[in-house]
Amino acid sequence: MDARDELSLVFQALADPTRRAMLSHLRDGAATVGELAEPFEISRPAISQHLKVLERAGLIERTATAQWRTCTLRTEPLDAASDWVERHRDEWNERFDLLDRRLRDLKGTTDA
Amino acid sequence: MDARDELSLVFQALADPTRRAMLSHLRDGAATVGELAEPFEISRPAISQHLKVLERAGLIERTATAQWRTCTLRTEPLDAASDWVERHRDEWNERFDLLDRRLRDLKGTTDA
Repeated sequence: MDARDELSLVFQALADPTRRAMLSHLRDGAATVGELAEPFEISRPAISQHLKVLERAGLIERTATAQWRTCTLRTEPLDAASDWVERHRDEWNERFDLLDRRLRDLKGTTDA
Repeated sequence: MDARDELSLVFQALADPTRRAMLSHLRDGAATVGELAEPFEISRPAISQHLKVLERAGLIERTATAQWRTCTLRTEPLDAASDWVERHRDEWNERFDLLDRRLRDLKGTTDA
């Protein structure tokens, strides 16, 4: 895998429905790898690969105790992803609002 | 390329700094492929590939006139991406707030 910036790693991690479902599962609290794998009909190595991608993006943390290994969520990386998307959406929406106002103004001038 | 759900395509498109820079550029209005390529020291086929990924995700629209081909932004796919991220962030933040309150309550009980 190539070395990528943190934001790209987060978007990359979210670019898969299985990984998004795993993150959704973890909203209810920490889970073992077995619990996370349970809903999916995919091999254990594939599950392991998905968890690696999530861990590399900083979206999960894996801890091992004497008895078992659990995964927990980390929300911080989502903040950066959200910031980027929101920043772009907002400015675009502002542009559309501006365009909309200009068209109304123009229409007003024409109607007058 | 594999057939992927729309949300995955959007996150995949955002998982690259060059593609994100192209989208940022397009916030200022439509641009030609040459204008979009200008800041990057990468080959024209590589630029073309990035544009294909953005187009497949529905984030840009390419139009060809007699004189030139331009790219324009489409913001709708970002709404779905934003919704997903926000939904997960919000619920996690609520969980942390709840945990925080419980810890405060516990501390209050201990201090009393």
